[in-house]
Amino acid sequence: MKLYSYFRSSAAYRVRIALNLKGLPYEMESIHLTKDGGRQFSDTFRAINPQMRVPALELSGGEVLTQSLAIIDYLDEVFPDPPFLPAEALDRARVRSAAQIVACDIHPLNNLCVLRYLKRNLDQEQAAIDTWYHHWVIEGFNAIEKMIEQVNVSGPYCFGSHVTLADICLVPQVFNARRLKVPLDAFPKIVAVEAACLKLPAFDKARPENQPDAE
Amino acid sequence: MKLYSYFRSSAAYRVRIALNLKGLPYEMESIHLTKDGGRQFSDTFRAINPQMRVPALELSGGEVLTQSLAIIDYLDEVFPDPPFLPAEALDRARVRSAAQIVACDIHPLNNLCVLRYLKRNLDQEQAAIDTWYHHWVIEGFNAIEKMIEQVNVSGPYCFGSHVTLADICLVPQVFNARRLKVPLDAFPKIVAVEAACLKLPAFDKARPENQPDAE
Repeated sequence: MKLYSYFRSSAAYRVRIALNLKGLPYEMESIHLTKDGGRQFSDTFRAINPQMRVPALELSGGEVLTQSLAIIDYLDEVFPDPPFLPAEALDRARVRSAAQIVACDIHPLNNLCVLRYLKRNLDQEQAAIDTWYHHWVIEGFNAIEKMIEQVNVSGPYCFGSHVTLADICLVPQVFNARRLKVPLDAFPKIVAVEAACLKLPAFDKARPENQPDAE
Repeated sequence: MKLYSYFRSSAAYRVRIALNLKGLPYEMESIHLTKDGGRQFSDTFRAINPQMRVPALELSGGEVLTQSLAIIDYLDEVFPDPPFLPAEALDRARVRSAAQIVACDIHPLNNLCVLRYLKRNLDQEQAAIDTWYHHWVIEGFNAIEKMIEQVNVSGPYCFGSHVTLADICLVPQVFNARRLKVPLDAFPKIVAVEAACLKLPAFDKARPENQPDAE
């Protein structure tokens, strides 16, 4: 398998974690999102993913999968061990809901292309962009922190003693939040989950700073 | 089951379609997103969904599920007929990817709370907000239109003769696009899928204009 990735893309970071947790070896091709005006917009990459975004996963048969959550669900279905979701439908729905707060509510607003639009098309200053960024992270993290409290398990991960899709989505979002200096004091549960996850080699190897294309 | 809904919320619209397709009866409680400064922010609703968003689905046992895609996956797991996803993992990933272009890339940027932020916090005029709206819809629809072309089935739905999660997400987004006057001439496949879906009672009954709280 070949992963089209960028060290700082948090959606690509999710897929790197998932591949590592499943113990799947993969080749990586870095798609630099800012050099040359963004290499995701090149004709070569557009032929791979018409949406011009990373990650994209090329399977051994040549098929290309896009959208990080769809890729992760695929990996979980084809390589079920260890599972990313609990066995019971209700528990699965809770895990998915937490993951989707990151993937559908926080991250889309903090995506590079959105921040660029705010700057270039709406003439926003960096301070206003940072405030925007913090706003959506804090709103989403408030909900996730409360969810982890309500689950009321002893940890160390979002939903107990097994890593789930929620952790796979949360850790890259915390990385992003730290990079943009979002204060995390109000989120002790989230910070504890992040620390527990990063002790696992699958997460550690996937960290942006441990990628060959890290700057 | 009880669905907390708002006629115009496209995420709630997805869940209404899903419930109808499964033939599941449900009670509906309307949460008006603009009256009284937004009733999703009331203490009563905050206790139901701390994220203060619709939809939320209360199960007969009292458990509350949040996030539209997590709710739809739950319904599909517990009530498997008719299935919202194809049988093969690779096909499932393609359907999920198309659905997530709507749910993770288009809709989060066009959400009411985001449009409000642009207006109130970033002092944007309506024209600039409309341009923003159109931009993200067109970018996402370009990718979905190309995906439907590549699937190369004879329709009438996104992925062939069976309704999938992709259709469930796409139709509400097309409704939104029409409401905000996004030109759809460049998306003949998407428009044809919408027309085919709206012929089905499950979609028709779920339409915003057919809701008891429609204005």
